[in-house]
Amino acid sequence: MPILVLDIGGSNVKLRLTGQNGRTKKIPTGPDYTPKRLIADVRAATKGKKFDGVSIGFPGPVIDGRLPFEPQNLGPGWAGFRFKKAFGKPVKLINDAAMQALGAYEGGRMLFLSLGTGLGSALIVDFHVIALELCNLRWSKQQSLEDRVGKDAIMSLGIEQWEENVRIAVKMLRKAFLPDTVAIGGGAASHLKHVPKWVRRGDNSWALAGGERLWTEKRFRY
Amino acid sequence: MPILVLDIGGSNVKLRLTGQNGRTKKIPTGPDYTPKRLIADVRAATKGKKFDGVSIGFPGPVIDGRLPFEPQNLGPGWAGFRFKKAFGKPVKLINDAAMQALGAYEGGRMLFLSLGTGLGSALIVDFHVIALELCNLRWSKQQSLEDRVGKDAIMSLGIEQWEENVRIAVKMLRKAFLPDTVAIGGGAASHLKHVPKWVRRGDNSWALAGGERLWTEKRFRY
Repeated sequence: MPILVLDIGGSNVKLRLTGQNGRTKKIPTGPDYTPKRLIADVRAATKGKKFDGVSIGFPGPVIDGRLPFEPQNLGPGWAGFRFKKAFGKPVKLINDAAMQALGAYEGGRMLFLSLGTGLGSALIVDFHVIALELCNLRWSKQQSLEDRVGKDAIMSLGIEQWEENVRIAVKMLRKAFLPDTVAIGGGAASHLKHVPKWVRRGDNSWALAGGERLWTEKRFRY
Repeated sequence: MPILVLDIGGSNVKLRLTGQNGRTKKIPTGPDYTPKRLIADVRAATKGKKFDGVSIGFPGPVIDGRLPFEPQNLGPGWAGFRFKKAFGKPVKLINDAAMQALGAYEGGRMLFLSLGTGLGSALIVDFHVIALELCNLRWSKQQSLEDRVGKDAIMSLGIEQWEENVRIAVKMLRKAFLPDTVAIGGGAASHLKHVPKWVRRGDNSWALAGGERLWTEKRFRY
């Protein structure tokens, strides 16, 4: 059963049909990108291709399979958008960090952090996927975890201070969530020079693996 | 099936046999309290009473039904202690905040905070109970959430500043965990003057209800 996996981000959508190893297309997005443009772009990119379902990883909270809020880094029209109707196919909509976490998961209690445009996060406990918004945790009175660990912090603080902040954040979150493993993905994960051996570092392939697992791996709850 | 419920804390153990509404005994504990003394105290307190199982809410992490660490506020000997052997009965051992959360739970995604000697926490998502240690989250470079929201903070900061800190912490945790409900229990919950209407405030009866539900409510995973 071929599945179309979409990993929507603030700078591009990554798109892959399962069964086509490594062939990922990127479609640019941005702060004015709407769901109607997504539908048109995906139609064009998948012309002549067959797929039976769509997995969408979305950069924001997903509640009961719907988007309750407009996203921070995209255009308007996303809240409440009916993807299933627009695609004419079954759709599984999930938070983007949760989709990546699903792709990374190997068992037990895993904390997942995505170092992308923002800071994504999810916890998986015994195949139960729980999307979180740990970006909103406090770093100090003025600053959030996202302010100090997100991708923008690389530019504003310099890469060494940013890496030190990631280290501090991971140490704190390990104490707070007691995970068996910590996995770090997202586009900026590759910038980390030193990764403790108990941290698993991944890349965007986790998102695509997670999108496929939504349909094939029955043990997951999300 | 009568169950003995023990809610172990840094100043006392609360003890109740299910089926005996409201009759809770308190046994004093303290920084030198050992599991051997617990067993002796419980034997004395339950002399002539019948029970078929024991629920233990413990103030520290519980992993795979065992205590991996010595607790902060009690004496030595707890890590790895074999409660089942000592009681000669089936024992369910769970983090104390998780046990309270279980007693408070009504469905959906619930974040539970216990304002006791320390700051306890748990998340329940669709009957899956996940004990957390959010006490270790950061308030500032020098201070943790527990430093500013735990019971000691009432004395050191004054009750008004403490209540303001609880308000800030709950607001932050709501954004980070996206719960349908927030429940606040523990001995210090009663000191809060103003509780937002979307927060449920409880008391120690949640711990005893949770201890019973461990045996009677099959939907829970923990």
